[in-house]
Order: sequence, then structure tokens, then C-alpha cells
Amino acid sequence: MTIVDQPTSPYTGEPVGDAIAHTAPEEVDRRAAAAGRAAEPLAALPLPRRAGLLRAVADALEADREALVGLADAETGLGEVRLGGELTRTTVQLAMFADLVEEGSFLDVIIDLPDPEADDRARHERGGGDQRRPEAVPPPRPDLRRMLVPIGPVAVFSAGNFPFAFSVAGGDTASAIAAGCPVVVKAHPGHPGLSARTGEIVAAALAGAGGPDGGFAVVHGLDAGRALVTHPAIAAVGFTGSLAGGRALFDLACSRPDPIPFYAEMGSLNPVVVTPAAVAARGAEVARGFVASYTLGAGQFCTKPGLLFLPAGHGLDEVLAVESASAGLPPMLADRIVSAFRRGSAELAATDGVRTLLPPQSTVETTGYRVSPVLVAVAAARFAERPLIEECFGPAAVIVEYDSTADLEAALETLPGALTATVHAEVDSEPDLARSLINRFKDRAGRVIWNGWPTGVAVTAAQHHGGPWPATSAPLHTSVGSTAVRRFLRPVAYQSLPDPLLPAALRDANPLGLPRRVNGRSGTGPITGPLGR
Amino acid sequence: MTIVDQPTSPYTGEPVGDAIAHTAPEEVDRRAAAAGRAAEPLAALPLPRRAGLLRAVADALEADREALVGLADAETGLGEVRLGGELTRTTVQLAMFADLVEEGSFLDVIIDLPDPEADDRARHERGGGDQRRPEAVPPPRPDLRRMLVPIGPVAVFSAGNFPFAFSVAGGDTASAIAAGCPVVVKAHPGHPGLSARTGEIVAAALAGAGGPDGGFAVVHGLDAGRALVTHPAIAAVGFTGSLAGGRALFDLACSRPDPIPFYAEMGSLNPVVVTPAAVAARGAEVARGFVASYTLGAGQFCTKPGLLFLPAGHGLDEVLAVESASAGLPPMLADRIVSAFRRGSAELAATDGVRTLLPPQSTVETTGYRVSPVLVAVAAARFAERPLIEECFGPAAVIVEYDSTADLEAALETLPGALTATVHAEVDSEPDLARSLINRFKDRAGRVIWNGWPTGVAVTAAQHHGGPWPATSAPLHTSVGSTAVRRFLRPVAYQSLPDPLLPAALRDANPLGLPRRVNGRSGTGPITGPLGR
Repeated sequence: MTIVDQPTSPYTGEPVGDAIAHTAPEEVDRRAAAAGRAAEPLAALPLPRRAGLLRAVADALEADREALVGLADAETGLGEVRLGGELTRTTVQLAMFADLVEEGSFLDVIIDLPDPEADDRARHERGGGDQRRPEAVPPPRPDLRRMLVPIGPVAVFSAGNFPFAFSVAGGDTASAIAAGCPVVVKAHPGHPGLSARTGEIVAAALAGAGGPDGGFAVVHGLDAGRALVTHPAIAAVGFTGSLAGGRALFDLACSRPDPIPFYAEMGSLNPVVVTPAAVAARGAEVARGFVASYTLGAGQFCTKPGLLFLPAGHGLDEVLAVESASAGLPPMLADRIVSAFRRGSAELAATDGVRTLLPPQSTVETTGYRVSPVLVAVAAARFAERPLIEECFGPAAVIVEYDSTADLEAALETLPGALTATVHAEVDSEPDLARSLINRFKDRAGRVIWNGWPTGVAVTAAQHHGGPWPATSAPLHTSVGSTAVRRFLRPVAYQSLPDPLLPAALRDANPLGLPRRVNGRSGTGPITGPLGR
Repeated sequence: MTIVDQPTSPYTGEPVGDAIAHTAPEEVDRRAAAAGRAAEPLAALPLPRRAGLLRAVADALEADREALVGLADAETGLGEVRLGGELTRTTVQLAMFADLVEEGSFLDVIIDLPDPEADDRARHERGGGDQRRPEAVPPPRPDLRRMLVPIGPVAVFSAGNFPFAFSVAGGDTASAIAAGCPVVVKAHPGHPGLSARTGEIVAAALAGAGGPDGGFAVVHGLDAGRALVTHPAIAAVGFTGSLAGGRALFDLACSRPDPIPFYAEMGSLNPVVVTPAAVAARGAEVARGFVASYTLGAGQFCTKPGLLFLPAGHGLDEVLAVESASAGLPPMLADRIVSAFRRGSAELAATDGVRTLLPPQSTVETTGYRVSPVLVAVAAARFAERPLIEECFGPAAVIVEYDSTADLEAALETLPGALTATVHAEVDSEPDLARSLINRFKDRAGRVIWNGWPTGVAVTAAQHHGGPWPATSAPLHTSVGSTAVRRFLRPVAYQSLPDPLLPAALRDANPLGLPRRVNGRSGTGPITGPLGR
């Protein structure tokens, strides 16, 4: 029996479009092996041609914009306006990585020329001379030239909630290609038709721009995904999804005979703290902003603020409840997500010590995958004892009410790692409290936000979309922004190579005009003078 | 019963100095927790004071040089000349990281100022405005400022073969402190007295220079090491040692409820290929250099070249055997290392299809832990079928004899990841072969060496001492050279913070004078003009 992913419409709950068959094991193996064979020719493409691959993909997606957005809306129900914007984000992201490849500093070239006075010592002590003499420690400095090279084929696990920006042609794929790595995408079952179609477009665009055979492929099915993570040809994995899914695949990657880097962006509670002065100055505005952020996209963002810390007696119950009840939500992505949300939010509301501002809807009157927001409140002291820190995917949030700064701090102490943490405060009246909150959050979150909201992740060089476990499996890395490319690059040092044998990036003349650090000084010039050859 | 590490003299095999007790579980917990408490005050020290910590450690080690070298020689038998040089390397390494901290580019500051034209859109779309409007994708760019911050307390597992440079005050400790991280060292049982004494010196030097209480400690014993890897306060691990030990601790780190980065530098075969033209031009010189390198320090270097690929009919048997037999070796480090070497080298010599150039010594006549080199040869075709790729720690090496380039390449195809790979060739007569070998090796090794030897790892910015599994558990990172600091730093992005609340490194005025990248341009100046505040 062939197993399939059957897309359904979130608007109706009914099947839409053709079912997509799961990829057979031998076909997964064939595609991963082909990616392995594509690694060297892809890495060898000159940087402008590598940038050209990314631009070709962006152009091809733009050329099919209308059909893609329509297909995405049919399968995800996220709405054509949002999806059109997300497609723009996706093509802008591809262009950003193309710019990065052309600029070249991502290769992180560091050159240390030999210490000329140590040359004789070096020859004497490292072979050819008196072999009984112990190793020179510290050894004299030879000519050493280091750069980053592609790590090899990357498996990319798509997310369900961003069918363009974190899917087949999303940030993981774009950054892997920018690094010079072949990609095999494991499609998300929530938008299988869109994944297959996007995969065709990407593969054709890459081929048209001179990309190597087998350098890009899409596979479908959970078993196909697991097979990728353990395939000998796969050198790294990028994943966006749930903590449970991320953990299972992380464990699989670590259990390989040769473990490989596994970059998962998983769950996050994204706490928001509002100080007493901020409530006094603009409580209703903060409450409205919070509701807009936690209900955005039906709460299906990894940056959804799930915890709002308010001073007790905040007086914002009504505005929070009314604004939430009137927020216009798109449907959720899938039947099983609706079920999980109904179960999770009902448990939340039934928790001992919890006050319900907006209860779960007991009856389901709407068609498709529509749900209503759920909002509960709990005292900080109670929260500190038994934290409500299970992330509830969807439009649900917990208000944590604190009596004092000590009370607040004890509750914050229980929080796990997060992608973001937000402070709403008044800098003039509470500078010490603000500073203390920011300092605390920098140790627990990847991005610290001031008087704003975590939803909306700008794609730029200074972005960091990451954080300590369980926000991610790799706290040194980001899955959004230009430094995401670093996940798929590893250093190599070349020692004492003749100039013609060096990669172009490392030659004395700097024929690629790259930014390089030579003997501690940064520049784009050639190596000349007494230290050059 | 108290379990102890009893040091013995490699010169005599007899106990030397006092036994050092293994650290009790509650004491390990206490020291790890203290390191956790020290994380914030250590991270908060101004960079010049952090650099001062490293210089204070270097000065304190120099002040006790004679006693330390004597103690090291008594426990390791590596000889006072080598150990004196290694201590110099260690203090030079500490000074290098102090310079790095003062220079500041290691913080990798990236600042993207807001897109002023997007300001109104941003306010409108991300809260406070029409909440039904979908998220702006790509969202307008807010003020984003990213820098690296310390990851938290680091557990360091010392190596036995470098009692200074990869031990208590070695590269892992120096790079962790440079990153701003507290350190708890698990001492190597081979030099427990030296480890304890070095630990006292380091702790006193740090305290004297204003380091926080509990920011540095040493523990002894295997159980203590395992407890560190799973301790909630420990945020990352640096390890230098065997593949078996590294794998066991890697699995432990991955099995935590909150897995942490585990940086292991493990085993490596460090292949060397010599081309026919190189043999013709300077065969005897290459053979002598190889022997000097593989027997250096009794073959107890992670960069020991364990495989030498020579063209069949090379005619170098005699020079290889004679030079090896006359190489003056120090004793090995420990009884169990001698046993493992005797067992491993005997297996090597007894392997089907192997020709023995220098057989294992069947009788043991010398005192202490002295051994003799072992050298065997095997045909490349036989090697390609059943590779001899178990690393044999000690003065043993395998010559692999190839009949053709295809024969050579088939044998190379079987090699696992390595720290280094070396090519001896003649660039004028064999440019294509040389280029092909270098290109192949860059995918399998961290450092590619031309007409030299892998032993001798310069401590410098362009160094890369790493490589794909099993050379290391983290192919993106190095354990030697200034970029080793990156293992212990994680990014944080600050969004829209008022200038006075930003860390000094990110403020408009750039009060620390750091190298920063602002809107894509690198420089050390302040942010001024229309894009500033």
C-alpha cells in the first residue's frame, strides 16, 4: 500500500488537490546519494555563479507567484495577502543570500604569513634535521591560510506554518545553497502539493542556472525524513518544527556512527514582562498589542508570545478579553493541530489555581479548522511552584500576575530557553528594573525586545533567531538572517601551499577581491611586500 | 573506600608523589553550582579586566616554571626541554587570548539600524493598529544589534599527552575564560599532581586579578567527569582524548534533558601521500622527515602521521627502518598506554597481507614505559578492501603502497575524517595530481599540509585544529588558535533598545572602540548622522 499525504482545505476541512505519495526508501537513498555526488561540483562553482543559482530560484518563484500563492492558500488557509507577503519575504531572503555570496566575507578568510625569523628553526625542528630534538613548542609559524568550505549535503525539514519562508525554498535551503551545499528537503505534510510544485520550480531554476545534477531534491513522508538524517551522504540537518519532532530527529542524528550537526528551531514560550510603570503609562495599548501578537496567524508562530507577566491589579482583564474575542483569526493549519489546541487549551483552563479570562469554546460551530482564542491568568507565586510551560501551539496565552519584583523574578527563574523575550517598561522611571530584566533575558533568549512584540522576524544581518534549548538544539546558531549560512560551513586551514595550488580565495593576489584578515589586518587587497612571496 | 589517582614515573614505572583522591559527588556538584553562580559576574567584567585574568594566569605559571616543569616530567616523562617549551606555548596561548579579548572583534558585533521609511508601516502592522491586518512579510526592519555573549560554565576534559597546553590551563580553559565563561576542569589521571598544583595556581591568579568566586575549579575522577557533563549548570564541554572516551561523553551530553554543545577532539590517522615525483626528487629526505614526525614524543600526538602512502617500488624500506630503529624516543605516558600499544602494534604486524619493516619488540628489556617503533607496509589494493584504520596511539605507522593513481585514490576513499592530511609532491611536474589530492583532502581533514609534517600545531588566528568525525565531534570548530573562542559564545540580538539600556559594546557612541559592522560597513567609529539617534 502506498502511503500518501492528502492535503485538506483549512477553510472546509475537505480534501483539496491530489494526494502526494511518500517517497520510497530506495528513492530517498538515490536522491541523498545524488546530493552527495553534487557536493563537489556545486562547491566548485565560482561565487558569482553560486549567487546566480539563488537569484534564479527567486526569479522562478516570482514568475509563478499567482499559482503558488493560490496553491498555498488552498492547502494552508493562511490567506492570500499573508501568503503573498511571505513569498516576497522568501524571494528577498534568496536575494540577500545571493548578495552575501557575492560580497564574500562569509568565507571568513584568515591568513597568517610565516614568521620569517622562525624559518630556520622550523626547518630544523620539524623534520629533516636532528630528529632527537623535541618538538618546538610553540612551533614556529608556517604559512597558514584558513577559509570556510561547504560542509556537504544538507537535509532540510520544512515547517508547516510558513509554507514559503521556512519550507522548500525557505531560509534553510537558501542558506545551505549560499554555503555551497546540496539540499534534500523533507516536505511538510500540511502543504504537500505546494511542496512538490515548489520543488519542481526550484530544481528547474537551479538546472537552468548551471547547478549540478542531483543538487536539489524533495522527499515526502516521515520515514523518508528519518532515512535522510541517518544517510551517510547527509552532512548536516536544518529543522523547524515541534520540540517532540526536533528531539526525536536530534537523537537520531547523534546516534549515527558519525554524528552530524543538527540545527533544530523548536518551541518557545516567548515571555513578555510588563512593568507597573508601563501599565500605568499605556496599559490598554500594551494589552491590545499583546492580543494582536498572540492571535496573529491564529497563534501559529514560533515567536507567539505565550506568557504575559503583568503586575497584580493591572485592571486589563476586560480589554484583553474583548480584544481577543474580536480578533479575526485565520483557520488553523490542520485537523490534528486543532485537536491538539482544543486539548491543550482545555487543560490550561482546567488547571488548579488558574483564572479564565476567555474560556475554550465548548462547541464547534464553524466550518474547517477555525478556533477561538483562549486566555487564562495565574498568580506568579503559583506559577513559580508549578510553571505552565508546556507550549500551547495556537491562539492561547497565560497571564502571570506578580505582586512584587521578587515575585516576578522567582517566576522568571523557572522559564526555559526561548527564541525571544520582551520587556515593556518606562526607561525614565525604572532604569534599574529594565536593566535587570534585559540582563536576565539575554541569558535565556536569542532576541531581547524593548517595548515591541516578538512576532515579525526581520531577515537581516543582525538578526538572531535562536536561543538555548529547547528553543533550539544549537544555541550558537540562527535560522533567520545572513549568519544562518554559518551552520553549513566548516573551516579548513592550508599550510605552506604554493600559491598556484591554493583556492582562489586564499591566493596572494586576492583575485576574487574578498575581504580577508591578513596578519591581523582586514582588507581586500593583495599580499605584497616583504611578507608576501 | 576513597578512589585515587596515583601518579607513576614513566622513567621507572614506580609511584611518584602523592595520590590524588577522586572528587566526591557532592563536591563536584558544589563546584559546578559555584561555576554557575560565577557566570554572571565573570561575564560582567569589563573586557580589559577579563584580559587581565588571562595574563595573571600566564604570569603565575611563569613564576612557578621550574617546579611545574619538574613535576610534569616526574609524572609524564616527556622531558624537561619539551615540557619547558610546552609551558611557554601555554603562556603564549593565554597571552594570545588576552590580546583577542582586548581587540574585541571576537564579539562579532553586527548592527542594523532601522529602515526609517518603514517606521510607520512597522507601527501600524506590528501592534496598536489594525490587528486584523496580516503580519507584514518581510517585516519592516527595526533597530537590531547583535553580539556574542558567554554561553555559560564550561567543563574541560584534559588530555594526557600535553600536560600544560591541553590540560588545566590549556587551550580549552584559556578560550573559555576569554569567552567570559567559568571553567571546571576534569583532570587527566596521568598527571594528577601537576593538575592539582596547576589548579591551585590558576585559581589563586584569577582571584588575585579580581575573578569571581567559584569561577574556576578542578575535579578528579571518571565519575566526576560524567557528573560534570550532565550537571544542569554546565553549558558546554571541551574534550581532548580518545575516540572511545569522546564518544561516551558525547552520547551523555546529547542524552541530557537539555543537550549542550560538546566539542571533542578525538583520534586521527593524519594520512600523508607522497607522489612518485617526490620520491624521485627527495625520497630519503621525505622518509627521514616522516620517521621524525611519527616517532616524535613516542608517537603520542593527535597529529602523528599514522599512514604514509608511497608508490610501490619506492626503495625506502631501509632508510625508514634504520631511521625508525635509531629514533630516540621518550617513554610513553602510562602503563596502560604501553599495553595498548603493544597489543595494537602486534595486531597490526600480524594482519594478513602486511609486510613488517620493523617488528614489535617481543621482549621488554628497558625500564619504565619505553617502547620501540613499529612499521608495517601493505598494498593499497589490500588496504582499500579492509582498511587498517584503527588508530594505534604510539610510535607505529602503516606504509600503504600504491601501483597507480587509481589505486591510490581507491585507498584514500576509505579514509575517515582527520585532523590533518599531508601531500608531498612536486608542483612543477605534477600540478594536476597535487591539485586533486589537495581538493580531496580538504573534504576529509581540518588542515591540509604541503611538503611538511602535521606534528607542530601553530597557535595562531589562521590555525584550524579540527575536522570531520571522528577527528572531532564538531566539524565547525577548532580547539587550537584564536577562533577556538567561538565554541563558547552564543549570539543575542537586541531589538529597539534605548541606547542607555544597551550593552556598552552596542551603544551608538561605541565607547569600547570595538570593530563593528553597522549597516554592512565595518569600522570602529560611533554611529552618527541621519541613521543614528
